[in-house]
Amino acid sequence: MGATGTMGNKIRVGILGATGYTAVELMKLLLRHPHAEITVLTSRQEGRPSVGSVHPSLHGRLPLCLEDLEPRVVAERADCVFSCLPHAASAEAVSALLDAGARVVDFSADYRLDSPASYREWYEHEHPDPARVGGTVYGLPELFRERISEARLVANPGCYPTSAILALTPLLKAGLIDVADIIVDSKSGVSGAGRTPKLATHFPECNESFSAYGVGRHRHTPEIDQVIGRATGQSVSVIFTPHLVPMDRGILTTAYSKPLRDASDAELTAAVREFYRGEPFVRVRDSLPATKDVSGTNFCDIAVRRVRQRVLTISCIDNLIKGASGAAVQNFNLMYGFPETTALL
Amino acid sequence: MGATGTMGNKIRVGILGATGYTAVELMKLLLRHPHAEITVLTSRQEGRPSVGSVHPSLHGRLPLCLEDLEPRVVAERADCVFSCLPHAASAEAVSALLDAGARVVDFSADYRLDSPASYREWYEHEHPDPARVGGTVYGLPELFRERISEARLVANPGCYPTSAILALTPLLKAGLIDVADIIVDSKSGVSGAGRTPKLATHFPECNESFSAYGVGRHRHTPEIDQVIGRATGQSVSVIFTPHLVPMDRGILTTAYSKPLRDASDAELTAAVREFYRGEPFVRVRDSLPATKDVSGTNFCDIAVRRVRQRVLTISCIDNLIKGASGAAVQNFNLMYGFPETTALL
Amino acid sequence: MGATGTMGNKIRVGILGATGYTAVELMKLLLRHPHAEITVLTSRQEGRPSVGSVHPSLHGRLPLCLEDLEPRVVAERADCVFSCLPHAASAEAVSALLDAGARVVDFSADYRLDSPASYREWYEHEHPDPARVGGTVYGLPELFRERISEARLVANPGCYPTSAILALTPLLKAGLIDVADIIVDSKSGVSGAGRTPKLATHFPECNESFSAYGVGRHRHTPEIDQVIGRATGQSVSVIFTPHLVPMDRGILTTAYSKPLRDASDAELTAAVREFYRGEPFVRVRDSLPATKDVSGTNFCDIAVRRVRQRVLTISCIDNLIKGASGAAVQNFNLMYGFPETTALL
Amino acid sequence: MGATGTMGNKIRVGILGATGYTAVELMKLLLRHPHAEITVLTSRQEGRPSVGSVHPSLHGRLPLCLEDLEPRVVAERADCVFSCLPHAASAEAVSALLDAGARVVDFSADYRLDSPASYREWYEHEHPDPARVGGTVYGLPELFRERISEARLVANPGCYPTSAILALTPLLKAGLIDVADIIVDSKSGVSGAGRTPKLATHFPECNESFSAYGVGRHRHTPEIDQVIGRATGQSVSVIFTPHLVPMDRGILTTAYSKPLRDASDAELTAAVREFYRGEPFVRVRDSLPATKDVSGTNFCDIAVRRVRQRVLTISCIDNLIKGASGAAVQNFNLMYGFPETTALL
Repeated sequence: MGATGTMGNKIRVGILGATGYTAVELMKLLLRHPHAEITVLTSRQEGRPSVGSVHPSLHGRLPLCLEDLEPRVVAERADCVFSCLPHAASAEAVSALLDAGARVVDFSADYRLDSPASYREWYEHEHPDPARVGGTVYGLPELFRERISEARLVANPGCYPTSAILALTPLLKAGLIDVADIIVDSKSGVSGAGRTPKLATHFPECNESFSAYGVGRHRHTPEIDQVIGRATGQSVSVIFTPHLVPMDRGILTTAYSKPLRDASDAELTAAVREFYRGEPFVRVRDSLPATKDVSGTNFCDIAVRRVRQRVLTISCIDNLIKGASGAAVQNFNLMYGFPETTALL
Repeated sequence: MGATGTMGNKIRVGILGATGYTAVELMKLLLRHPHAEITVLTSRQEGRPSVGSVHPSLHGRLPLCLEDLEPRVVAERADCVFSCLPHAASAEAVSALLDAGARVVDFSADYRLDSPASYREWYEHEHPDPARVGGTVYGLPELFRERISEARLVANPGCYPTSAILALTPLLKAGLIDVADIIVDSKSGVSGAGRTPKLATHFPECNESFSAYGVGRHRHTPEIDQVIGRATGQSVSVIFTPHLVPMDRGILTTAYSKPLRDASDAELTAAVREFYRGEPFVRVRDSLPATKDVSGTNFCDIAVRRVRQRVLTISCIDNLIKGASGAAVQNFNLMYGFPETTALL
Repeated sequence: MGATGTMGNKIRVGILGATGYTAVELMKLLLRHPHAEITVLTSRQEGRPSVGSVHPSLHGRLPLCLEDLEPRVVAERADCVFSCLPHAASAEAVSALLDAGARVVDFSADYRLDSPASYREWYEHEHPDPARVGGTVYGLPELFRERISEARLVANPGCYPTSAILALTPLLKAGLIDVADIIVDSKSGVSGAGRTPKLATHFPECNESFSAYGVGRHRHTPEIDQVIGRATGQSVSVIFTPHLVPMDRGILTTAYSKPLRDASDAELTAAVREFYRGEPFVRVRDSLPATKDVSGTNFCDIAVRRVRQRVLTISCIDNLIKGASGAAVQNFNLMYGFPETTALL
Repeated sequence: MGATGTMGNKIRVGILGATGYTAVELMKLLLRHPHAEITVLTSRQEGRPSVGSVHPSLHGRLPLCLEDLEPRVVAERADCVFSCLPHAASAEAVSALLDAGARVVDFSADYRLDSPASYREWYEHEHPDPARVGGTVYGLPELFRERISEARLVANPGCYPTSAILALTPLLKAGLIDVADIIVDSKSGVSGAGRTPKLATHFPECNESFSAYGVGRHRHTPEIDQVIGRATGQSVSVIFTPHLVPMDRGILTTAYSKPLRDASDAELTAAVREFYRGEPFVRVRDSLPATKDVSGTNFCDIAVRRVRQRVLTISCIDNLIKGASGAAVQNFNLMYGFPETTALL
């Protein structure tokens, strides 16, 4: 953060792939951030469109255009770069940005998995930057806060994994549930599918409808397995089923696990509450949460219930905030030493 | 309807452009029709997909594939053909179908307007079959029932025009409102925009949002003008504004006109009710209608109110039924002498 | 069905509690039924409101009023009575109707469970007609068709149980999955909560939101257990979690079970397909179903997938049709010897 | 703002009627306000419920309970009080609050109209505080900024009136449109109907439906007339029609007026843009606005179009922000000399 790298005392921020939903949400958060200044936005769209023409909600709020720029040029104009590019394309850009001296928060899955082999298996692509895979910090502050503070590159978590990992880790670490038998039944609003029009997310197709998709082959499966494994030191292999809910935003995850010892709702809840004591963005609740309770916020609300021979952990996040751009700002705050809740409350 | 042209006593029906929403709705109605048999479906999609793979709701209900066929071939397999093709493409096919001896209900706008010149102005295209333009019957049974019965080609009405014309014509013909000053403020569900994915109808764009579109230049404007003109013998030039409602189906039109003489709500309502006496699909109501009241039906519900120096006529239809496929089946029933409500109640 | 009991050759039908969503759906189906005539409707609303004033969608379609009548009077006017009353109130009326000679389809849960004790435990109410509990036929034709034909009283199934039982029974009976470890994660549209306005179903509360409710204590739990138990001869104790989806209608159930032997997706699917061979309303599909595929229909669509060490069975129904009124008409058809699909396709 | 009246340098804020949607939205905005501290909340609910139990989205964010308090007690604990009470009840409380020395922003309609007679006519109630009616400042900063700064009582504008007045006033004051012939066709999300569950706003009733309501008798009609009259010095009598859109929040108003002289889209737009030059919350746009563009913000987006012999002015606001709580905070900022955009960007 030398004199050349900041605007006054503000961190200069760039965003790659600024046309999507996570990017616009990130811009809105950063416009409230007293120590960040958005200085460069990229897109492969022709004609250098203004922010307001691409995102009408930002009309008049950010006097920038979306430019088709090389990572090297972006690194000259920004201290910290958020990459909202698709996987593979992101790693190529991130690698160049890091080499050029920028710090990076990567929204793609490129640096989340343990190994290039796992990446190849699930993303059906040879990793463009294999050397950094496995060693990159996973940007979930509730589990990896210290490492984030020092990181030059943070792999921003996936939306479903955030909801599942935050729900399950405390009970696993407390030895209250069995790592060997976990079902993660998740439900997401449609913004999670991105902004590119497709038949499945065409309004008259998915409105007034509910469906499962990607059963048994969703790419967030290995991410959930590996990060829970990293956090608990136990090998995990969850059954993960995503569903599409006819709403804009929000994820609710219903996780089913087996109790390792008899415990009441109150005991289970207390264990999770203790784990998250002092966390600014996790709210362990006695009542059942709804996605609307966290909509537009960086909160993750969690409730726990014992039902017959199972423990249910129900968690809610806003997929675009705690599941993407809010988490990214939380990571940014940690990376630069700002109060963790800056621009997020 | 000779021996070769029917299956038993059933009319053989073909549908051109069977991938869209009006086509699937039409198939559902015709599957209930005791005197119709769907025999051929076309699409330019490759690979002869089955109906069920294109429209999962019809899984197992209709053992046909969508084929890429010439109109001439379709006319061999069907007595009556419904064209759900886009404008211009439709007229080319319709022209060939008629020449080959089929009767046709055309869902496109190609045969709705008065003249090739008007068509050229609003559709920015030279009409492919100008000789038939202007002389084709407009398939609104409430106004043109007799001509429909004899027609070999019926121009199926547009969805917005149906709601506006049915609302305004009775009061105009009764001399109760002024033809010179009419505003038609219409609101439609998203299925009206068709099944091709676009950004404007991508779920997270239009859900939880309401907007006007095509202000001052929607192609249904001349259709409303010309058909009301034809029905009333008066020259009309409406202000028409369509809006997009975050719901699957339904159109509500709020039409504003000036009273020519003082009349109460009751008198205005009585005049409209008298006009539609005996009509099976127009319900003139004392209470205000909602689009849900007619959803999935061929009804048009209408209410009239005097507000200060204006008359408000509020009409509701299901844009895919009375605004498209239901009207088409109603026309089909008239063309073949079946009871008009067959398959529609 | 003597000369006095029918209108021409039509069965006279009464509906108790005709103000709700299942009642209006039932009326719409019966209006298409060639052998049924709705003759009496009841409600405790004062002033004998017309059908059209209570249900605007039925304006002009059914010239009846909702009356506050004793069961005995209803039994004089109807051969078959559908009770859409709440539990307990329903059993009181049903008991009187049966005594008065009517045949009855009961939409409430009053006659679904095995014993008055189970009823008391889950419904916190002493059963008003304990003698008939346990012996009443459960109106799921796919499992109990023969008994339905002869029944004077049919307990119409609950919506969630229908989706769960149809999904799980074939694999259990084929010995392909373990009865001891079953999770039923269900998601329902809001109409399932009934028509009485409450905060939880107030539009701005549940729209754009997704939540679990009744976790561990939903009254459909014992129904699922007991009916699967009855059908398979095995004791079952499922983990059942209902969720509320921001849409009008539809239920999707994701059921998780453990395979008893290795079987591929294709083998599992084939077993379910074989079980339902010839069933008019169960469609076993290779592709994943969405609730929209069955919306407005009496179909139950089912798909099966093997995911790691689990079998997923995904089923979709329209909660108001196959989950309520469509099933009731299907039962009615069986009770009176009409083709089972009458008024349902 | 004496030493006793502030907490440190913060204004102590109270909210009457804290259970509704405008109240929760107000709390969220004030939680971001560096110079405001919420100190007291009232409700007639029994049992002093916590904020989090009434509004789960505020779980853990505001350690207060909702209390059933007299205005006098509220005035002891707060410098500025926002009343979210229903009309009539509000005036009674406001009167007492003002007498006790508090400054007040009143969300109800009680102080918006010109006279007790007009109030009696439209609200069918004798005004409880007639002396203050007519003299109270109308809290629309774009028109009445100076008076707001000095006010002890501000009548916070209605949601529909805000959208209509902001759209029409500039063109009227510029002499570009005719005051004698104005139609205001407005469409609102369901949160505008409040939080009390009713059949009309029960999810399965209004979801997937669109309807007009209160035609010719909505209470915002005289408010639009009188405030436009006040701002332009011309007598106005608009035709106002509200509609209900199946979405949580947002109002779009399509206003139709007659041009007084020929003017292009560009000239009309320029006139409106000039009028709002420097305004922080009005965005005059060339493209057509959608309610989603302003959702969650205090912006009012406006576009103007000439269509045949009419001028269309289309405006969008978030009914809960610029249409209620955002406007209230904007007024609060003006009343206390804070930058007008504080907590609103």
